[in-house]
Amino acid sequence: MAVKKKTKTRKKAAARVRVQARPAPQNAFYAQSGGVTAVINASACGVIEEARKHKRHIAKVYAGRNGIIGALTEDLIDTSRESAAAIRALRHTPSGAFGSCRYKLKSLEENRREYERLIEVFKAHNIGYFFYNGGGDSADTCLKVSQLSETLGYPIRAIHVPKTVDNDLPITDNCPGFGSVAKYIAISTREASFDVASMAKTSTKVFVLEVMGRHAGWIAAAGGLAADKDCDLPIVILFPEVTFDQAKFLQKVEAMVKKYGYCSVVVSEGVKGPDGKFLSDQGLTDAFGHAQLGGVAPVIANIIKNELGYKYHWAVADYLQRAARHIASKTDVEQAYAMGKAAVQFAVKGHNSVMPTIDRVSNKPYRWKVGMAPLNKVANVEKFMPKNFISKDGFGITARCRDYLAPLIKGEDYPPYRDGMPRYVQLKKVPVKKKLKGSFEL
Amino acid sequence: MAVKKKTKTRKKAAARVRVQARPAPQNAFYAQSGGVTAVINASACGVIEEARKHKRHIAKVYAGRNGIIGALTEDLIDTSRESAAAIRALRHTPSGAFGSCRYKLKSLEENRREYERLIEVFKAHNIGYFFYNGGGDSADTCLKVSQLSETLGYPIRAIHVPKTVDNDLPITDNCPGFGSVAKYIAISTREASFDVASMAKTSTKVFVLEVMGRHAGWIAAAGGLAADKDCDLPIVILFPEVTFDQAKFLQKVEAMVKKYGYCSVVVSEGVKGPDGKFLSDQGLTDAFGHAQLGGVAPVIANIIKNELGYKYHWAVADYLQRAARHIASKTDVEQAYAMGKAAVQFAVKGHNSVMPTIDRVSNKPYRWKVGMAPLNKVANVEKFMPKNFISKDGFGITARCRDYLAPLIKGEDYPPYRDGMPRYVQLKKVPVKKKLKGSFEL
Repeated sequence: MAVKKKTKTRKKAAARVRVQARPAPQNAFYAQSGGVTAVINASACGVIEEARKHKRHIAKVYAGRNGIIGALTEDLIDTSRESAAAIRALRHTPSGAFGSCRYKLKSLEENRREYERLIEVFKAHNIGYFFYNGGGDSADTCLKVSQLSETLGYPIRAIHVPKTVDNDLPITDNCPGFGSVAKYIAISTREASFDVASMAKTSTKVFVLEVMGRHAGWIAAAGGLAADKDCDLPIVILFPEVTFDQAKFLQKVEAMVKKYGYCSVVVSEGVKGPDGKFLSDQGLTDAFGHAQLGGVAPVIANIIKNELGYKYHWAVADYLQRAARHIASKTDVEQAYAMGKAAVQFAVKGHNSVMPTIDRVSNKPYRWKVGMAPLNKVANVEKFMPKNFISKDGFGITARCRDYLAPLIKGEDYPPYRDGMPRYVQLKKVPVKKKLKGSFEL
Repeated sequence: MAVKKKTKTRKKAAARVRVQARPAPQNAFYAQSGGVTAVINASACGVIEEARKHKRHIAKVYAGRNGIIGALTEDLIDTSRESAAAIRALRHTPSGAFGSCRYKLKSLEENRREYERLIEVFKAHNIGYFFYNGGGDSADTCLKVSQLSETLGYPIRAIHVPKTVDNDLPITDNCPGFGSVAKYIAISTREASFDVASMAKTSTKVFVLEVMGRHAGWIAAAGGLAADKDCDLPIVILFPEVTFDQAKFLQKVEAMVKKYGYCSVVVSEGVKGPDGKFLSDQGLTDAFGHAQLGGVAPVIANIIKNELGYKYHWAVADYLQRAARHIASKTDVEQAYAMGKAAVQFAVKGHNSVMPTIDRVSNKPYRWKVGMAPLNKVANVEKFMPKNFISKDGFGITARCRDYLAPLIKGEDYPPYRDGMPRYVQLKKVPVKKKLKGSFEL
């Protein structure tokens, strides 16, 4: 018996040692960066809900008010003060609930002070995890924070949570945020095409829709999904990848109008003319000679009117396209949430300087899984749309492009409604008490 | 027994007489007129489904291809060739499935020939019912067709089916088509406001959304529903009923940005300056001096940029707002269907020169019933937005306006989806064989 007792005592002591060896939980920092999307809050929801399941590792999640600026200025939001219901509602609330910012940290050489300040703030608030939800620039910031924190002796696990409607992050098959914009543009183009088809006999013959995507035609390509085997519609796409050829374009529009009686044009804001200048930059001046900024849609519409004489209508979707949570892609919502959740799981498992990715397993049926990419392979790498996604004439999408895009818009994920309006959450955003003296000049 | 037999024989004879006395069923004509909406096909669905239930009175429903032009040119579509499923799908398909037109018949004095031609075509195709689905102009046409048909000895029952996003028909509480645009604008304004709120710290501070409504501010007013007691948002509305006062407007925007950090502006395309000219008509010229047509949104955005220095984004919803069947108001869909159905019921009961109306019974809970208005009280009467719907400062809606608008956007009525896209029907549109010789010059 005495021996047995001794063993028990030894076991207890060992357990005690293990408990003592396990590091105390640290807080996590989460921030939203750059242009927001219909589903970036779904990633926030994934991060916070998952973190709440790992109390042994993560004490509280502090969010940066207005992105990384919140960290630099020690303006932190205590997400533990938000109810479970409020956090759950983030999943169906568009845009950045904590505020985002367009603020690119300079290189370490140029402004080492900013990075040091971040570490200072993290140290003051016992932050051991850094979740940064953004695009290419923020992947770079995330990597630098991780590297510098090691150098400064306060190692932080930095995980990048992918987000961008531009769909231009490498390694991941697609980016959360893009699928919902694609769905909105595909549906809007289909609906407007039905409209112009109805009016074409005596009125509007061409409808022009301007969409986002200054550098790549991913979003414009989604306009091509408006037409499919069940729904024959004449869609002409103007990609930023294809230099605008006015004669060829007019020929295409005329042929479509002759065949169908009407047509829809989906034009990327980034389309450039042969002179390399944005088509939207037409040197417009008002009656007083002041320069006026217009979109590319009215420019295209005017060309059609002047050269072909067709009556037109044009629309500029702008923020509506990326904020349209009411018609978000279910696939996109699920992936956005999964990215936030995986980021926390990676961090808890000890990973650092990585980004969860969406790995496509198969197209039919569409299957995907969560992967992992090292941040040094992500930062400063831009993924362009493959050339074979654009049809030979330059005005449409190929079957390969359709196979890629189609699964990303699959499924609807309607928000709850009250009295006809979607119920989006506005958080309390209780500030964390400041611990540092003095302020930080941005 | 002999007596009894005689009675039976008499009864049979009487029955035979009654059968002979009942007029043979005639065909009906249905056409869509003017700008289309997200729910005009729901009215078409109501007309056709109800007509199919009244075989004793209505043989077939012929639709005009491209509206009244289809009647003038004897270009009729045989809706009996469409399956029950296809007709049912009209209920969730936006825009005009048979084609609409902007073609206003002249007055009887100016072009009596057109009206005579209509009667000729109706006579040739044994059409005894005329269902005209449109706004104020088509109510007038409908009335004239009814009157002239009497004069020409071929009386037709002409029923007007109300439709207009402009919400300007008299007597009826509201017009089918308006509720869905209102819902789209309210939701889009809420979503875009969430977006700009996220970006305001370092980037966009003002978002400008241009909406339809050249003569009345009904649609602009719907932007006011973006904010409610559950959702505090800074919304500034520019109504066509209020002359644009730049100084006052800038003061309002600045105050909102100071209070909230950002604001959204909903501007009606019909806003005019103190000179009485549309604000959108800025005399824009391109580099070559060609006049350029722009929207009012970029004009407002430029004023804000130049005078207040705020970064802005702007959108022009255009056709997207009236084609957005994906987020149609359930109330609107039900009312549009009910109007089509009632039109047929009225005609079958012998009514003529009338329009079914939506009569509001109560606000809380919202209850409405179908009413009836004589066309001579509808034609050429335009309903304007009451002055007490606009707040004192001219930039918002009153509680009274909210009480009126709120029920009209209630409920969602999602279309079916396949592979992420709404399944809208494209009809076969089988033509009815022509019976008249020669063609008709429009």
